[in-house]
Amino acid sequence: MPQLSLRIDLDPDGRIGPGKIELLEHIAAFGSISAGARRMNMSYKQAWGLVVEMNRIFGKPVIAAQKGGRRGGGAELTPVGMAVITRYRAIERAANEAAAAHMEALQEEIEQA
Amino acid sequence: MPQLSLRIDLDPDGRIGPGKIELLEHIAAFGSISAGARRMNMSYKQAWGLVVEMNRIFGKPVIAAQKGGRRGGGAELTPVGMAVITRYRAIERAANEAAAAHMEALQEEIEQA
Repeated sequence: MPQLSLRIDLDPDGRIGPGKIELLEHIAAFGSISAGARRMNMSYKQAWGLVVEMNRIFGKPVIAAQKGGRRGGGAELTPVGMAVITRYRAIERAANEAAAAHMEALQEEIEQA
Repeated sequence: MPQLSLRIDLDPDGRIGPGKIELLEHIAAFGSISAGARRMNMSYKQAWGLVVEMNRIFGKPVIAAQKGGRRGGGAELTPVGMAVITRYRAIERAANEAAAAHMEALQEEIEQA
């Protein structure tokens, strides 16, 4: 079955797609940029570049240094970072639902043509 | 206002997004691959590569040589090519509608954070 993948164009130069969202989710899950990057087979430099780009796009930081705790030096999502993930996933779900009938019809039209 | 852009992943290696769809629309409107490519500031070679890729993805040709007429050598869409455009645009419209409330909410959450 065909899958949709979504990009949100936020300003002429700013685009959020599945890669950036997954990176934020991995940073949230593993507690640091380096651990998140590692799980995605991405270099720290590349991950950091994407975080900087998202900060620019949204005009506010998407992650912040984790305060205190045994694991100093970690990172956690800011409210903006969390909102971005949550809304992206909600949009994805809504879009997939809205598109499902068309996707099936397209599949059939191709088979019958 | 943020805009959605959609890609449809049809097989592990096949992806249809706004660029391929626009190319098909331009070929349909201007009657040949070369004219369609020109309107998109794309080389003929690049446009032809995208057409070949779509033929592979759908397992059937998306365009065909135009038969007869004064303007021999032109190209027109096949039923598969037309179905792909129509369904992609319908999916886009449905997805944008389904996503609108989330897009607005995201915008507000970012401003308020």
